[in-house]
Amino acid sequence: MEHPFDTACTLARQSDGRFSGHTSDAYWNMAGPFGGTTAAVLLRAALLDQAQGVEPVALTVNYCAALAKGPFAIEVRPARSGKSVRHVSIEMQQGSGIVATASVVLAVRRDTWAHQEARMPEVPPPDAVASMPTDGRLPWLQRYDFRFVRGAWRPLAQPFAAPQPAHSTLWMADVPPRPLDHLSLAALCDVFIVRVFLARGTMVPAGTVTMTVHFHAAADEIAAQGSAPVLGVADAQIFTRNFGDQVAQVWSSRGRLLATTTQMTWFKE
Amino acid sequence: MEHPFDTACTLARQSDGRFSGHTSDAYWNMAGPFGGTTAAVLLRAALLDQAQGVEPVALTVNYCAALAKGPFAIEVRPARSGKSVRHVSIEMQQGSGIVATASVVLAVRRDTWAHQEARMPEVPPPDAVASMPTDGRLPWLQRYDFRFVRGAWRPLAQPFAAPQPAHSTLWMADVPPRPLDHLSLAALCDVFIVRVFLARGTMVPAGTVTMTVHFHAAADEIAAQGSAPVLGVADAQIFTRNFGDQVAQVWSSRGRLLATTTQMTWFKE
Repeated sequence: MEHPFDTACTLARQSDGRFSGHTSDAYWNMAGPFGGTTAAVLLRAALLDQAQGVEPVALTVNYCAALAKGPFAIEVRPARSGKSVRHVSIEMQQGSGIVATASVVLAVRRDTWAHQEARMPEVPPPDAVASMPTDGRLPWLQRYDFRFVRGAWRPLAQPFAAPQPAHSTLWMADVPPRPLDHLSLAALCDVFIVRVFLARGTMVPAGTVTMTVHFHAAADEIAAQGSAPVLGVADAQIFTRNFGDQVAQVWSSRGRLLATTTQMTWFKE
Repeated sequence: MEHPFDTACTLARQSDGRFSGHTSDAYWNMAGPFGGTTAAVLLRAALLDQAQGVEPVALTVNYCAALAKGPFAIEVRPARSGKSVRHVSIEMQQGSGIVATASVVLAVRRDTWAHQEARMPEVPPPDAVASMPTDGRLPWLQRYDFRFVRGAWRPLAQPFAAPQPAHSTLWMADVPPRPLDHLSLAALCDVFIVRVFLARGTMVPAGTVTMTVHFHAAADEIAAQGSAPVLGVADAQIFTRNFGDQVAQVWSSRGRLLATTTQMTWFKE
């Protein structure tokens, strides 16, 4: 049986050159699909017409409007195809409106001098950390195994008297297990709960308006992770005048930095 | 006399709806204009048709090809204009090619609950730090006052035996002085020297392929900074297979986080 993530990323070529897809109930969030699957399906569209060996380096997704349940179309426009680097611009449409835009940087990545300056935090292995129960919760939450080392969150009735740290560290994996690839890595960059909830304590109206993912591993390196949990480390720097940020890292089990990501989230309170 | 930065950001409306501009010799880099001015002029194009009070929240610029000296055209396409958030897609063209693409998130930012979790590092004031001499160096370097607290860089003949920290902390300001605004703040996000140079010691072929800027201050808060130097803090997390990242913060003199930025830089060695 096909993994629900692959179903969510399925695209068909239309006669007008666009790709068509369908929102996934399995990854439904409160008022639209989980933004991670939107990021993944946009990235998939960017990769469909690329030659073998061309891999994603960076992805920016702008969430313009909530998607309604149903079909969507994706238009991919190559912006520039250089010798070593390619740029692609993407629009996701529903009806006559644009619901998301994205830009993707692609490249054939060759061996060079390499150095990882960042280090994975020391944490207990996934087996030593309890999974967060997701039964009966939103569908997309049930599609992930969350094992919080620090910074789990449950909504409070009243906000904290003083702002609390917005930091989370957690092991995370697809449910059911699925071998990691660039698509699921992009989606994992959006699984961190909105940081303003952690800082404030309560649930406030909020939504990601833009997310950027930088990929630091090639397909062979990502495949080496298999379906084992990856470590996510997420934090925020500032919340002010309707917007807060998020900065996060995704680490392999062996301490390799696979991706880094930032986003800006709208909130109201 | 007009400030050279404002000259670099000057746009005229063409009859076909696009904007036309011209590269600036005053901000010339090695093989094209300084990427910060490209970011600024793209942001300016996004702001030109917006109502009073609509301000930038996020900007992603994809550097597709080196610009040649001369004119360029900018095409702005509104992607979505919601009640509180607007999305704009932008292309910069030279001849028949796309040289840069950008996406901008805009909003009217209202007062909300606010909290700055990040703290400015303790550093000596700008007056206590020597300016880096820029006489005779690249034009764009002469357009900034760089006062390095840590992490200044001069190319070595041979690479370091072991990778060195890619961290820099510096006071920075426009030359001649110019009151800070969103445009110059966007440009300042690109003044940090390519991180791979610091880690490796030598100059290697390198260029930014994508930069994202998150704005954490509204126009009134940015205006309060005047033309005093802002503090830049830049670092990298990983260099591998032709690409390295950069993460940076820009702080006001009073310790307010004005903007955060990330980029991916191509390098070869």
